[in-house]
Amino acid sequence: MTSKQVKALAGAVRTAAGAVRPVPGARITGGLLHHWQVRNGAATIPHTIEQLRAAGNVANLSRLLEQDPAPYRGRYPFLDTDLYKTLEGLAYELGDGRAAEPVREFYDEVVGLLERVQAEDGYLNSFFQDPAAARKPWEDLAWGHELYNLGHLIQAAVAAARRMGDERLLRVAGRFADLVVERFAERGVCGHPEVEMALVELYRETGVRAYLDLAAAFVDRRGSGQIEHSIFSADYFQDHVPFRELPSVTGHAVRMAYLAAGAADVFLETGDRSLFAALERLWDDMVASKLYLTGGLGSRHSDEAVGDRYELPSERAYSETCAAIAVMQWGWRMFLATGGAKYLDVFERVLYNAYAVGLSEDGRAFFYDNPLQRRPDHEQRSGAEPGGEPLRRSWFGCPCCPPNIVRWMAQLADYVAAERDGALLIACYTPARITGERLDLAMETSYPWDGDVHLTVGRAPEEPYGIVLRVPGWARGATVTVNGEPHDAAPSAKRAEAAADSPGGSADGGWLRIERRWAPGDEVRLTLPMPVRAHGSHPHLDATRGALGIARGPLVYCVEQQDSPSAAVDDLVVGVADVAGARTGRRGEAVVLGVTAGAAPPPSTELYPELSLERAAITETAVSATFVPYFLWGNRGPEAMRVWVRSRTTDGKKAT
Amino acid sequence: MTSKQVKALAGAVRTAAGAVRPVPGARITGGLLHHWQVRNGAATIPHTIEQLRAAGNVANLSRLLEQDPAPYRGRYPFLDTDLYKTLEGLAYELGDGRAAEPVREFYDEVVGLLERVQAEDGYLNSFFQDPAAARKPWEDLAWGHELYNLGHLIQAAVAAARRMGDERLLRVAGRFADLVVERFAERGVCGHPEVEMALVELYRETGVRAYLDLAAAFVDRRGSGQIEHSIFSADYFQDHVPFRELPSVTGHAVRMAYLAAGAADVFLETGDRSLFAALERLWDDMVASKLYLTGGLGSRHSDEAVGDRYELPSERAYSETCAAIAVMQWGWRMFLATGGAKYLDVFERVLYNAYAVGLSEDGRAFFYDNPLQRRPDHEQRSGAEPGGEPLRRSWFGCPCCPPNIVRWMAQLADYVAAERDGALLIACYTPARITGERLDLAMETSYPWDGDVHLTVGRAPEEPYGIVLRVPGWARGATVTVNGEPHDAAPSAKRAEAAADSPGGSADGGWLRIERRWAPGDEVRLTLPMPVRAHGSHPHLDATRGALGIARGPLVYCVEQQDSPSAAVDDLVVGVADVAGARTGRRGEAVVLGVTAGAAPPPSTELYPELSLERAAITETAVSATFVPYFLWGNRGPEAMRVWVRSRTTDGKKAT
Repeated sequence: MTSKQVKALAGAVRTAAGAVRPVPGARITGGLLHHWQVRNGAATIPHTIEQLRAAGNVANLSRLLEQDPAPYRGRYPFLDTDLYKTLEGLAYELGDGRAAEPVREFYDEVVGLLERVQAEDGYLNSFFQDPAAARKPWEDLAWGHELYNLGHLIQAAVAAARRMGDERLLRVAGRFADLVVERFAERGVCGHPEVEMALVELYRETGVRAYLDLAAAFVDRRGSGQIEHSIFSADYFQDHVPFRELPSVTGHAVRMAYLAAGAADVFLETGDRSLFAALERLWDDMVASKLYLTGGLGSRHSDEAVGDRYELPSERAYSETCAAIAVMQWGWRMFLATGGAKYLDVFERVLYNAYAVGLSEDGRAFFYDNPLQRRPDHEQRSGAEPGGEPLRRSWFGCPCCPPNIVRWMAQLADYVAAERDGALLIACYTPARITGERLDLAMETSYPWDGDVHLTVGRAPEEPYGIVLRVPGWARGATVTVNGEPHDAAPSAKRAEAAADSPGGSADGGWLRIERRWAPGDEVRLTLPMPVRAHGSHPHLDATRGALGIARGPLVYCVEQQDSPSAAVDDLVVGVADVAGARTGRRGEAVVLGVTAGAAPPPSTELYPELSLERAAITETAVSATFVPYFLWGNRGPEAMRVWVRSRTTDGKKAT
Repeated sequence: MTSKQVKALAGAVRTAAGAVRPVPGARITGGLLHHWQVRNGAATIPHTIEQLRAAGNVANLSRLLEQDPAPYRGRYPFLDTDLYKTLEGLAYELGDGRAAEPVREFYDEVVGLLERVQAEDGYLNSFFQDPAAARKPWEDLAWGHELYNLGHLIQAAVAAARRMGDERLLRVAGRFADLVVERFAERGVCGHPEVEMALVELYRETGVRAYLDLAAAFVDRRGSGQIEHSIFSADYFQDHVPFRELPSVTGHAVRMAYLAAGAADVFLETGDRSLFAALERLWDDMVASKLYLTGGLGSRHSDEAVGDRYELPSERAYSETCAAIAVMQWGWRMFLATGGAKYLDVFERVLYNAYAVGLSEDGRAFFYDNPLQRRPDHEQRSGAEPGGEPLRRSWFGCPCCPPNIVRWMAQLADYVAAERDGALLIACYTPARITGERLDLAMETSYPWDGDVHLTVGRAPEEPYGIVLRVPGWARGATVTVNGEPHDAAPSAKRAEAAADSPGGSADGGWLRIERRWAPGDEVRLTLPMPVRAHGSHPHLDATRGALGIARGPLVYCVEQQDSPSAAVDDLVVGVADVAGARTGRRGEAVVLGVTAGAAPPPSTELYPELSLERAAITETAVSATFVPYFLWGNRGPEAMRVWVRSRTTDGKKAT
């Protein structure tokens, strides 16, 4: 396969400094992720196209071709990006042959509009090109989102070129990018990071070094306090401290994670080790103190901000869907840089929880923020946005999340496997066909509903080759057989380093490597035990003290009031033994958990009772409740929900 | 004393439907509240005047007298109110003879400006009167704050008329109020409640029934969804549900509490029992589920909103200083309505905690929001406001809180005592001279530092008369002597109802009544035991589960890192016995608490450790920490602070 062939198939390509590289030729063939992709094509994409038309995103472009254009519709200067993200998703759909004809018509219509609307000099942004509004390009770098717009345009363009071989958008994006290279040669940076990732990708696609250099400059220009805004302070924009000196992920969560993902892309091409050191430090700090159990990032509605270390309130988790996608993008690039499995553990946690929850079961409604708790008296808010509405909505005035979900669903296959010289790595377990550089595999599994994975070798090289299986952090006692024989993998070998050339030397274990001479038809069976787990939390995390969270495999579970008929979910008291004894059952495809818990209604209504030395024992009654995967909550109407339930340790003994 | 004389001295006057009435003739003569009043005059008022001049609040008026006025300074349409609140405070200062000459000059200058700037028709608002800005009065009732402006103008005007006998402002306010009565005869309501309280006060002062009727109408016009705003939803404005049907205090916290206080004023004059029933339900629900241990109201930075029941995060407590004042205003009016001591318990909790913390020890810096926790890595924010800055600031772009503190400090004496026929009630313990209608008292005490109160009777009526002493909810085993002899107050008598004519019949006990024939020189000594208390929290309150709060008397305590030399405050583990064994000490006048606690640093850095059935016991080391009154925190630089500390119940056993 030539380099050009690889590029024509890949969501991301061979990088200069990465320890591993993506496998462009994977295809998801069944299971949960396949269901998500089918739903994306059948429901979410048609819905999104309909909403984009209704909200005026398409008209914002087409009106610019008219003599006396109607005003720009919408409040935000970044509404073109919702088209771009949709186009990016459509490029995968069309390239993979999943899309129907109306989708291609929409794609062609919008691409055609963009070609015609683009200014002579390459500028393209329907908010600032508004002839009636007298706005000037680049007059408001802090809030104008023009480079953020360009970033999403580039990502759509690269996807179309690679997946469809359609280079029309790439020409549009390239002209705009060239204008930006000139305009921002010396100074200036966008209030909303995103273009950094895109410029590196455009460099990979075109080989034009100026794009990479500009991306690197954008990372390093932050921290000078040059981004001025009347409401938001410099930390909101990650402009209060140079990126390499940031003490922790901070400010607006989506901006932060896009910026870090872009910086990781810069590292992947430049090998700039001080940049990587900052990335590793920020990532580890985030995972150790700022991520929700669901993988969500962002604790504050106010400023949509990350929050302090250990500030992780359940009911007010902001955990924006876009931040979930950004964390996955960042984590994937950290994995490419190092081969470290720990990054994929987070990637997977986000994928199945903080990201997946953002979409309704029917694929036509969205969360903007993704709380881990809904209180029984939570008030419906009317009209407030973003994030005011507790249950999923069909669209938003700031609709950044829905098309982000669309593009990510469409490209999931890009994250199934990776390669390095002499080995194929399985990053994500799903029914799939994987066409590697030298080895092909067919994967069958019911993951994430169980942990049995069955791999069948197709094409294989003559010489010994490695198949490297990810062992998630939660999996204890993973076993593997090759052609029915137990594979001799000593525990120490299981934690072996996948990539010895990891630049930071930090990529931890989590891999199970099988190296041998493979023949077509060879079978590998991996068993990842999936007991139901109880998770506590760090003692500094006040919001979940005295509570436990339930998980199984990569899935976080929650209890909705509909599934706790005998007790309010706020009154459930669950012990570790209750969790260990949970019974798995099915609701459709999904595995649900039957838990026998205690119910301890409050003995009085006093808010802050005075404590005496002799505490009255709380008497519980035994009740049953069913816990469902968190990503499935909120599909049956607005009732109370909890991920974190009161733990028995705190609240007395269970009545026997 | 004639009615006019009473009015000339009173902050509030005899009401039509109240169970008790204020005592206008109290004067605070020493102790903590006196220190606060002295500091108000010596530091906060001069500082406030300086800031108001520097920020342009005065210039916003004076420029309107010029030919070609400079633009309005500031972003908000309510900056005149900061002058009005300051004038209200100055009226007390000047009326009580506490203010220096520059204060009177400022007062006269601003009053003179207001007289000259007021429009022909009575309209007065320097934001909308801006001739350059082409804004029209009443064009934006949702956000214009024009009636909110009028409300504060009236309150200043009534204070000046009553305390100083200066009726200049009253004429200005009356002309504006008359315009408003006409303009709002049929429809319309202000986005920010406040004018309701003021209109009732203006009715009391003038006897003009139209003011009362309009206030009542404003309460009842909410809930029609007529307040439209592009960002905030109807619940923010308490406009989603009619006031009488509100399920709970909700929306913007300050708006909510001002509205409720205004509705209580309407009840006090109309005796509208269905209105009172709503007020009582809302109050009880708030106290049972939505107030911080400090008495603060408002859990959310986003929308500065109240939040759901039991949503009370410590580190993100918004608990705006203005909301604290509004809750006191509401609580005082509920007390006037019923004679219920429970309202004063909350009043006092707010006064000494959520309100007092808003001002620095030196009286020149302010909190806008008042969190109950500061994390060690809490980031300083630059420029964000309101509420972004973690430690007190000298002023704000939205400076509603500082002058609100000023006016409230100045009028504290209004809340020391109350009367009903045949009895004088002591609401608040402080050194004071109280001139009642028929009985005068001198009060000496070190309260809140200890619970000994010494009353000496001055003027007394011939016939038997009641002295009714408040027994705070936290006080167990209160005793009283009269002229050295134990007073025969059976426990049941102590809980006796102070006001049998309480309209809701709900005012609970908390009063200790002594009725006898008094002679000048008679002495009453009340002893309120003040052990150090540990408070837990309702099981539905996630944010403080497994933690305890420490209080003594009306004061909530906290620990700052400066006073925990051997352990991070986040690692302190305190048991109920540790609290019971706390040693009281002094820091200046303040009583501080020495607590021997455990320190339990986190055993690992994992954020969500998997729990096993066998939990490792946590080993603590014994450490000492000093807890200080919460209102004093943050005067020694930005370090970590906690009100709620981890409790031993959750976190293992103390090492012996």
